[in-house]
Amino acid sequence: MGVVVNLDSERKRPTLDALTELVSTDLQAVNRLIVRKMDSPVILIPQLAGHIVAAGGKRLRPMLTLAAARMCGYCEGQRHVALATCVEFIHTATLLHDDVVDESNLRRGLASANTLFGNKPSVLVGDFLFSRSFELMVEDGSLDVLRILSHASAVIAEGEVLQLITTNDTETSETAYLDVVKGKTAQLFAAACRVGAVVADRPMVEEEALETYGMNIGIVYQLVDDVLDYSATQAKLGKTVGDDFREGKITLPVILAFRRGDERERAFWRRTLGNLEQRDNDLEQAIELMTRHQALEDTLERARHYGAIARDSLGIFEDCPVKRSFHDLIDFCIERAH
Amino acid sequence: MGVVVNLDSERKRPTLDALTELVSTDLQAVNRLIVRKMDSPVILIPQLAGHIVAAGGKRLRPMLTLAAARMCGYCEGQRHVALATCVEFIHTATLLHDDVVDESNLRRGLASANTLFGNKPSVLVGDFLFSRSFELMVEDGSLDVLRILSHASAVIAEGEVLQLITTNDTETSETAYLDVVKGKTAQLFAAACRVGAVVADRPMVEEEALETYGMNIGIVYQLVDDVLDYSATQAKLGKTVGDDFREGKITLPVILAFRRGDERERAFWRRTLGNLEQRDNDLEQAIELMTRHQALEDTLERARHYGAIARDSLGIFEDCPVKRSFHDLIDFCIERAH
Repeated sequence: MGVVVNLDSERKRPTLDALTELVSTDLQAVNRLIVRKMDSPVILIPQLAGHIVAAGGKRLRPMLTLAAARMCGYCEGQRHVALATCVEFIHTATLLHDDVVDESNLRRGLASANTLFGNKPSVLVGDFLFSRSFELMVEDGSLDVLRILSHASAVIAEGEVLQLITTNDTETSETAYLDVVKGKTAQLFAAACRVGAVVADRPMVEEEALETYGMNIGIVYQLVDDVLDYSATQAKLGKTVGDDFREGKITLPVILAFRRGDERERAFWRRTLGNLEQRDNDLEQAIELMTRHQALEDTLERARHYGAIARDSLGIFEDCPVKRSFHDLIDFCIERAH
Repeated sequence: MGVVVNLDSERKRPTLDALTELVSTDLQAVNRLIVRKMDSPVILIPQLAGHIVAAGGKRLRPMLTLAAARMCGYCEGQRHVALATCVEFIHTATLLHDDVVDESNLRRGLASANTLFGNKPSVLVGDFLFSRSFELMVEDGSLDVLRILSHASAVIAEGEVLQLITTNDTETSETAYLDVVKGKTAQLFAAACRVGAVVADRPMVEEEALETYGMNIGIVYQLVDDVLDYSATQAKLGKTVGDDFREGKITLPVILAFRRGDERERAFWRRTLGNLEQRDNDLEQAIELMTRHQALEDTLERARHYGAIARDSLGIFEDCPVKRSFHDLIDFCIERAH
């Protein structure tokens, strides 16, 4: 047998198009359900929640639930739509609380909810969406789903607290940081994927395979995000860079540059990120140190490693359009960095 | 048949002693489970949660679940202990978020968690406890319980948002305020009681009777709290008064005084609570206006009304020690005001 080289995929930049196309009808149903379920007689709630939802984002997490359910052959109902909505509500609640905790003024380039509405409604509407998500799961009625998503929520909160502790701590190890990433980001990707297998009533190995895929694609996603925050290309495109730097967040590019640097460089990291004493051009200096030590490239190299695990985890599934779109997603997440 | 007059209960001041005594073994089990379930490798979580739990409080809500389960004849297991713990976790999560939202420095006379640990951990540990509570419910495995408590959580968040909107709005109506009270306080009391009937697998009428009891005792509890915040007696005892006043919270004593006052008095309320322009002696002046219009007395009168509904809701249950302790609780909640 010869080896078939897909010239197309080698020529094109990977996109989310195939995945988006495959779930587009389902995703529209999710969007309608989101609007319906965030309704409340207390109109500030739909107002604020609507702001977040309208602000968009890629809806990556609910798309994972929808696509995973389809790959597992689920076709007899709309449970995947309801559960994808739960996943998005948990994500939105987390975003609302994150912005309060990070004191962020911007979210995806728009004014964040806490800037527009204040911290107080952001905390409380987050709580509302979180509760509403559990109400929706209860309506669905699967204790397995409830177990997966309540556990994910607890782990997310743990990851966020861990991130809070490591902020400004330049001695944070790569292992500790990976725990933060798994908690705050990857756990929900993992749960989103796993739930797809659960609604389709597939055997445990498939649940676990999809969870592994989600966990690893989540790590890829976060590591690439960390790289983009220091990316010169992003800066040229007019996108915000340096948020993590200004907040003193210790991400993998920092960890690598810190450990590979000399004492003078470490003093720089301690001053800027440890003590948050930042001057003009410190961000440029940080990017230069990262470039000198290949910290950004090697963060991407680490991301590719997790991407490879994600790819292999899908090996037990038959070839099909969804599986191919899941492969594309790995490439897309990594290529975002360029 | 003669009427038995219980001279004892006429002589004594109502206490929580009977209720506390009845559930004391169960409550110790709850306290142990709380400590075990708030554990996490991220040590800031048990530290902060431990602060709240150690700070005490009366554990009124979990006691309601325990006692309701006993009144309904539940005796074959420890489910009521697990679910009472869920109720307390939801309450603790709410307290943590409340203190952030209210910018409180004190909670029960001690430094609040947000003062000691900062707002950020308070938001995130609240999320953790909330998630942990749902994990515990899933372990218990009753979708009915999950339905009741996820719904209660959503209503609590709605009530808190509604309170945020009515803060500083001196035109708030008694009806709107009652919605706030039902949401932020009474809903969890109602759910705590109802869950007791659910674990005991009792018919719907008993579930509903206990829910009604909880809802109304919750309203009593909150209205009396509102009175205490303006109580001269409390001030003499060295307890904090005037927190609601300083924050511009519109509670029932304010609503009554505002509506019964003349234009000059309304100007006073608008200045102090609407615009938060407060001077020395404004709190004393507020208490004087309330006294002039019987606003505190009549808030208590309203509380007695809800107390009467709570009492009648228990009519379908046989006389038993728990039922009597539930009656005592109504009297205790009202007598707190004196």
